[in-house]
Amino acid sequence: MTSKKVAIVGASGYSGEELVRLLLSHPHAELTAVTSRQYAGQTLAKVFPKFAHHPRAKALHFSEPNAELLSKQAQVVFLALPHGVAAEYAIPLLKLGCQVIDLSADFRVRSAAVYQEFYAHEHPAPELLAQAVYGLPEVYRDQIRSASLVASPGCYPTSILVPLIPLLKAGLIQPEGIIADSLSGVSGAGRKAELDYLFVECNESLRAYGLPKHRHLSEIEQELSVAAGQPVVIQFTPHLVPVNRGILTTLYVTPRRPVSTEFGEEIAACYRTAYGNEPFVRVLEGKALPDTKNVVGTNVVELGWRLDPRTNRLVVISAEDNLVKGASGQAIQSLNLICGWPETAGLI
Amino acid sequence: MTSKKVAIVGASGYSGEELVRLLLSHPHAELTAVTSRQYAGQTLAKVFPKFAHHPRAKALHFSEPNAELLSKQAQVVFLALPHGVAAEYAIPLLKLGCQVIDLSADFRVRSAAVYQEFYAHEHPAPELLAQAVYGLPEVYRDQIRSASLVASPGCYPTSILVPLIPLLKAGLIQPEGIIADSLSGVSGAGRKAELDYLFVECNESLRAYGLPKHRHLSEIEQELSVAAGQPVVIQFTPHLVPVNRGILTTLYVTPRRPVSTEFGEEIAACYRTAYGNEPFVRVLEGKALPDTKNVVGTNVVELGWRLDPRTNRLVVISAEDNLVKGASGQAIQSLNLICGWPETAGLI
Amino acid sequence: MTSKKVAIVGASGYSGEELVRLLLSHPHAELTAVTSRQYAGQTLAKVFPKFAHHPRAKALHFSEPNAELLSKQAQVVFLALPHGVAAEYAIPLLKLGCQVIDLSADFRVRSAAVYQEFYAHEHPAPELLAQAVYGLPEVYRDQIRSASLVASPGCYPTSILVPLIPLLKAGLIQPEGIIADSLSGVSGAGRKAELDYLFVECNESLRAYGLPKHRHLSEIEQELSVAAGQPVVIQFTPHLVPVNRGILTTLYVTPRRPVSTEFGEEIAACYRTAYGNEPFVRVLEGKALPDTKNVVGTNVVELGWRLDPRTNRLVVISAEDNLVKGASGQAIQSLNLICGWPETAGLI
Amino acid sequence: MTSKKVAIVGASGYSGEELVRLLLSHPHAELTAVTSRQYAGQTLAKVFPKFAHHPRAKALHFSEPNAELLSKQAQVVFLALPHGVAAEYAIPLLKLGCQVIDLSADFRVRSAAVYQEFYAHEHPAPELLAQAVYGLPEVYRDQIRSASLVASPGCYPTSILVPLIPLLKAGLIQPEGIIADSLSGVSGAGRKAELDYLFVECNESLRAYGLPKHRHLSEIEQELSVAAGQPVVIQFTPHLVPVNRGILTTLYVTPRRPVSTEFGEEIAACYRTAYGNEPFVRVLEGKALPDTKNVVGTNVVELGWRLDPRTNRLVVISAEDNLVKGASGQAIQSLNLICGWPETAGLI
Repeated sequence: MTSKKVAIVGASGYSGEELVRLLLSHPHAELTAVTSRQYAGQTLAKVFPKFAHHPRAKALHFSEPNAELLSKQAQVVFLALPHGVAAEYAIPLLKLGCQVIDLSADFRVRSAAVYQEFYAHEHPAPELLAQAVYGLPEVYRDQIRSASLVASPGCYPTSILVPLIPLLKAGLIQPEGIIADSLSGVSGAGRKAELDYLFVECNESLRAYGLPKHRHLSEIEQELSVAAGQPVVIQFTPHLVPVNRGILTTLYVTPRRPVSTEFGEEIAACYRTAYGNEPFVRVLEGKALPDTKNVVGTNVVELGWRLDPRTNRLVVISAEDNLVKGASGQAIQSLNLICGWPETAGLI
Repeated sequence: MTSKKVAIVGASGYSGEELVRLLLSHPHAELTAVTSRQYAGQTLAKVFPKFAHHPRAKALHFSEPNAELLSKQAQVVFLALPHGVAAEYAIPLLKLGCQVIDLSADFRVRSAAVYQEFYAHEHPAPELLAQAVYGLPEVYRDQIRSASLVASPGCYPTSILVPLIPLLKAGLIQPEGIIADSLSGVSGAGRKAELDYLFVECNESLRAYGLPKHRHLSEIEQELSVAAGQPVVIQFTPHLVPVNRGILTTLYVTPRRPVSTEFGEEIAACYRTAYGNEPFVRVLEGKALPDTKNVVGTNVVELGWRLDPRTNRLVVISAEDNLVKGASGQAIQSLNLICGWPETAGLI
Repeated sequence: MTSKKVAIVGASGYSGEELVRLLLSHPHAELTAVTSRQYAGQTLAKVFPKFAHHPRAKALHFSEPNAELLSKQAQVVFLALPHGVAAEYAIPLLKLGCQVIDLSADFRVRSAAVYQEFYAHEHPAPELLAQAVYGLPEVYRDQIRSASLVASPGCYPTSILVPLIPLLKAGLIQPEGIIADSLSGVSGAGRKAELDYLFVECNESLRAYGLPKHRHLSEIEQELSVAAGQPVVIQFTPHLVPVNRGILTTLYVTPRRPVSTEFGEEIAACYRTAYGNEPFVRVLEGKALPDTKNVVGTNVVELGWRLDPRTNRLVVISAEDNLVKGASGQAIQSLNLICGWPETAGLI
Repeated sequence: MTSKKVAIVGASGYSGEELVRLLLSHPHAELTAVTSRQYAGQTLAKVFPKFAHHPRAKALHFSEPNAELLSKQAQVVFLALPHGVAAEYAIPLLKLGCQVIDLSADFRVRSAAVYQEFYAHEHPAPELLAQAVYGLPEVYRDQIRSASLVASPGCYPTSILVPLIPLLKAGLIQPEGIIADSLSGVSGAGRKAELDYLFVECNESLRAYGLPKHRHLSEIEQELSVAAGQPVVIQFTPHLVPVNRGILTTLYVTPRRPVSTEFGEEIAACYRTAYGNEPFVRVLEGKALPDTKNVVGTNVVELGWRLDPRTNRLVVISAEDNLVKGASGQAIQSLNLICGWPETAGLI
C-alpha cells in the first residue's frame, strides 16, 4: 500500500499528542512534521518523554507552523488548533495542494451565520465551508474519501450523533424533545493552565457547565436535522467529572410508537443494520451497559439502550474516548479513507 | 439543653461510620452504643483509627445488636442496616420505648404493595408503616418533631425531592415528563467487597446502572405525587462516577408557562420562599452552578437552575454529600427535631 | 473564656481557605477579616460557596491587605502568603501590636544565611528572626504561649519532625544517614494555574520532584540538629501523588543498638512518653500502619513503626493532612496556646 | 516469520487481561486459547467488552484449564495464576512439550528453601527449579532464548533490578545498605473482591503495607546478589497509592567513591553501556525525572538519578507500568526471544 507523509499543526495539546501516539504506530502514514509555537526547536522526545522510546519518534522535533514548509513535508496535514486559528492554516495549505483534516470547530458548521452565533466571532474562511466534509465516517464515508478538507467532529457531537442518527433516519423516534446529558473527562478541556482544571479543583468534584447553550450544539443540531429531515433542537448538558478520558452520554428520546417488545426489536434491528458491520461501533446486548473504561484508548463507541414502559421513553447510552473516537482516532479514520487505506489501519 | 443517649445499629458501613463521625462532635447527643456483627468485641478506635483521637470515642466498642440491651443504653436508635433487616430491629425497639431513625428503605414507602414491587420481597413490618414519618425536614418538619419512627430518605431521593417539591407545589412545572439524571460517588454502593466497586474497576470509569427502574423511584414518585397532588412518574438514571462522595443530579422539567424573564423571577421567588430560611439548602445565584466539592462533608444541598428558551425547558441541578444530607446528616437533622434541639446542632 | 478577633492575610489559597474553614467553627476565635488581592471586594460566600451556609460567613468579604486596618480588626493575624511576601506584613503588624502566626517559611529558619541558601533571596526581615518561635507545639509549647511571632512549620517538616525528634532526643537512633521519603497530595503545590498541576497531568501520575535539595530541608535539619544536639543532614525525596490532601512519610533510620525485642520496647516507651498525652499524635499499635485517609480533615499525625532484623533498621511512617496538621490546623494550635484557650479548641 | 500458537491460563485477572490485549495485536503470535475457572464457557467479548471489537477476539471463549487440551492448542503457554497454583500446570505442560512462561512467583527463586521461607508453603515443583530461567531480558537474554520454562519477574523486582544491576556489576555502588521505596497502583493487588481494595478505601488514601519482609524480596535479593557477586540484603517498602497502573521506585544507594562530577559521568557511562541499545529502558537526561504517566501502557522502564553531595548518596528512580514491563509485556519480551522474533514485536 502506498504510504503518505502527514504532519500535525498544534501537536502539543491533548488531541495533537494523541495524534502523535496513533500516527507513530500507523502502518502506512509517515509522520514527518509536528509544530508547536510553545515548543518550537525542542525534540518530540523531550517534550513528550512517553514517545522517546519509539523508533520513529527519534527524528522528530517541534517546529514553528509554516504552511509553505508543511506543504513540502506532508501530503495530509492535521490541524489540532483552537477554533478561529485553524482556518488560518487551512486556507494556505489547501491552496498549496495539501489535504487538510481539521480537528477544530472551524469547518463543522455549514452556515457562517450559525458559526458566528455559537462561536461569537465572524467565520474566518466562509469560502471554504462548501468544500468541507463533516468527518463522521459512519455517516459521510463516501464524501470523506474524496474530500480535500475534512471537518472532524467534536467529542460531544460524536457521542450524540452515532446513537441518534440511525434512529432518526429510520423514523423510530420523535425529533422533538431530545435530551443529551453528557459526562466528560478533564482532557476535554484541553491542556490549559487554568484554575478550574487543577487537580484539586477537579478531583472529588462533579459539576455541570456551559449551560444551556454549549457551542457543540451548532454541529449536533445541524447533523440531527439532516438525519431527521427537519429542524431539530435538543437539550444538552455537559458535566465535568474526574477522569482523564472518556465521555458517557445518556440520551432521553421519545419513540414514535408505544414502547413494546416489538418496538424493541425494531430498535435492535435498526442498530444492527446501521452498525452491524461498522468496525468502531459496538452495540451491547443483554444486561451490559456502556462503560468508558471499555473504550478508553480505542476508537470504539459503545452503545446500549433500554426501553422504559413506565415512561414510554427510550434511553440510549454511549461511551467513547473523547481523545480517540471523539477527536484524533476519528481524524485518522478520515485519513485512512482519504488515502484509500483500510479504514481500521493504525486504529486496532 | 437536655442531652440524650443515642445508639447506632450497623455502625460499620459508610452511613454508620458517618453517623459516628457526626455524633462524636454533637453538642447534645451522647453516643453510648455502636453495633456491628462483623466487628463485635473490637473497639471503635481499632476498626476506625480515624476516630481514635476523639475523647468521646475512647470508651466505645462494637457489640452484637440486641434490642433489649440497646433500649437500656439509648433513647434514640439509628438503624444503618440493609433494607429488610432494619425492620427486624425497629419492631422491638419501638415496643421497648425507643425512638427509631431508620436510614434504610424499610419505612419510606407508605404502601406495602409498592415496597414489594420495588424491593422484591414482602414488607417485613407493614403494621408500622402508618406511624413512620418520611424524614425530609424541609417538607415534614412538624411531623418529624413528634415521630417515634423516622424513615430517613435515600441519597438520590433527597437530591431530586429538594429541588422539585417547591416547584410542583407552586404549580410552576408540569408533573409529567420529568427526567432525573444523577451521578453518584462510589460510597453510595456501600462497603461491600464486590468486584464492581474495586478501585481499578471504578477509577477512570463512567457508567450508568440500575436502568430503568431503580428502587429509589418508589419513594421519589410517592413524594413527588404528594407535592403535585396527582400521580407522578419520572425517568431516573443513576450513574457511578469515580469520587468517594457526592451526588450531582440534573433535572429536566417542563414549565407550566412559556420560558420568559418573568417566569424566571417566579422560579427564583418560589425557591426564595421555600428555602430562603432553610439552613441546609443553598440556592445559587449569578453564574455559579452546583459542584459537589462545595458540599462534601456538609449537610447542605446546593441548587442551581437555568431556563432554556431554545427548548422551553427548565434545568435544575442539585449537589449534596450522599453520606451527609443524603444519609447521616439528614438523620441527625431528624434527631435534632425529635429531641427539641436546634435543627443545626452538630451539623454546622 | 475570652474570645479574640483574628484575621487571615491571603485567605484565597488552600491554606488560607482551610484556616477559614476551621476558624468559622472555632468556639473562641472570631474571624473578622480575610484579605485577598485577587478577590478584594467580593464576598467570602461568592468566592467559596462551600462556606456560604455558615452563619458566621455571611458578613465576611475579601479586602485588600492593609496592616493598619488589620491591626484594628484583629488581635491575632494569620499570614498565609508566599515566602518573601509574608515578612512584608509581619513587620508592620508586629509594630502595631498584633500577634502574628505566619504559615510561610519566612521565619522558620533561624539563620538568615541558611534562609538565603535555600530560598535564593536575601532574608526580608532578619531583625525579627530572634523573636520568632517555631510553631511545633509538641516541641515548643511553652515558647509558643508567649510568642508574638509564630513561624508555623511546613507540611513536610511536620511529618518528619514529629516521628524523629523523640527518638533523637532519647539517643535511640543515629543522627547520621536518615532518609525521609515523602508522598504529598497535590494541594501541597498551592492553588496555582500551572500545567504541572492540571488534573490530567497529576491523575494516574506518580513522580518525584525537587531532588535532591528541597527548601524544607533547611527547617527540617535545623530542628533535627537541635534534637540530636549535633548537626544533622538528611536525605529527603518528595513525591507528588494523585490525592487532594495528605502526606505520607516513610523514614529510614539506623538504631543506636542492634534491633531486638527489648529495643522495640524502648522505642514504644519513648513514643509513649513523648506522645501518650498529646491530643494530636496517634501512635499505632498492633498490625495497623498509618493511612492518610485516617487523618484527612483532622489535626492528627498518625505514626507507625517497624524494626527490621534483616537490615538492622527502624522504619517509621507518619501520615498527616498537609493542610491541617501540616499547615492551618497546626497554626490554630498555636493560636489556642497564644490565647490561653484549650489547645484542642476548634480542632476536635 | 513463523507464527506460533499461544495460550493463556488464568486470563481473567489483570495480568491475564493485559496479556490478551497485547497478544491480540501481536504480529506473529496467534492467541488460540484463554482459560478461566470463573468464566469458563463465556466468550471473551462478553467478559471483557473492551476486546469485543477486535477481529481476532471474536472466536475466543474462556475454557476450563486443561493441560492436555492446551498442549494441542498452543506451543507456548502463559501462566497468569497465583503462586502455588502455577506449578500445577507447569509440570504437565512441560511434559507435553509446551514452552511455559510463568508470571507467578513459583519459579523465580532458585532455592526451594528460600521459596518456603517467603511464601510460607513448600515449593510445589522443586525438580523444575534448575531449568527455569529468570525472565528479565536485559540480564538473561541468551538464556531466555533457549528456555523451556521462563519465570517472568515480579513488578516490584523489575523496578528495582533494572536500575541497580548495572551499578552493582560495575562496582559503582556498595551492595550494603540499599533501600527501595516503591509506590504501586492498585492493579498490583490483583482483581480480588476485598474491602481493602474498594474504590472508597483506596481513593484519597496513601499507605505502606507488607512491612518489613515482602515476598518479592526473595527474588530481588537473589538477583542483586548475583550482580554484586556477594549476598545482598535490602530494605524494601511498598506503598499503595490511588492510580490504576504504575510503579514508581525510589532507590537510595551509597556510591563506592565520593560523589563528584567525575563520578556522575561514570554513572552516566555505566547506564549508557548497559541500556544505550535496550529498546525498553529509557535513561532520562537533563532535568527530567521519571513519571509513571510516561510509561503506562508501554513496556518501557524510565530511569532517572541524582547524586547528592550533601549526603554522599546516589538516588535512582524508576517508573514502569506494573502490568506491562512489570508483568505481561515483559512476558511477551520473553515470548519473542523464545520464538526468535524481534524482541519488540507486539510491544511498540
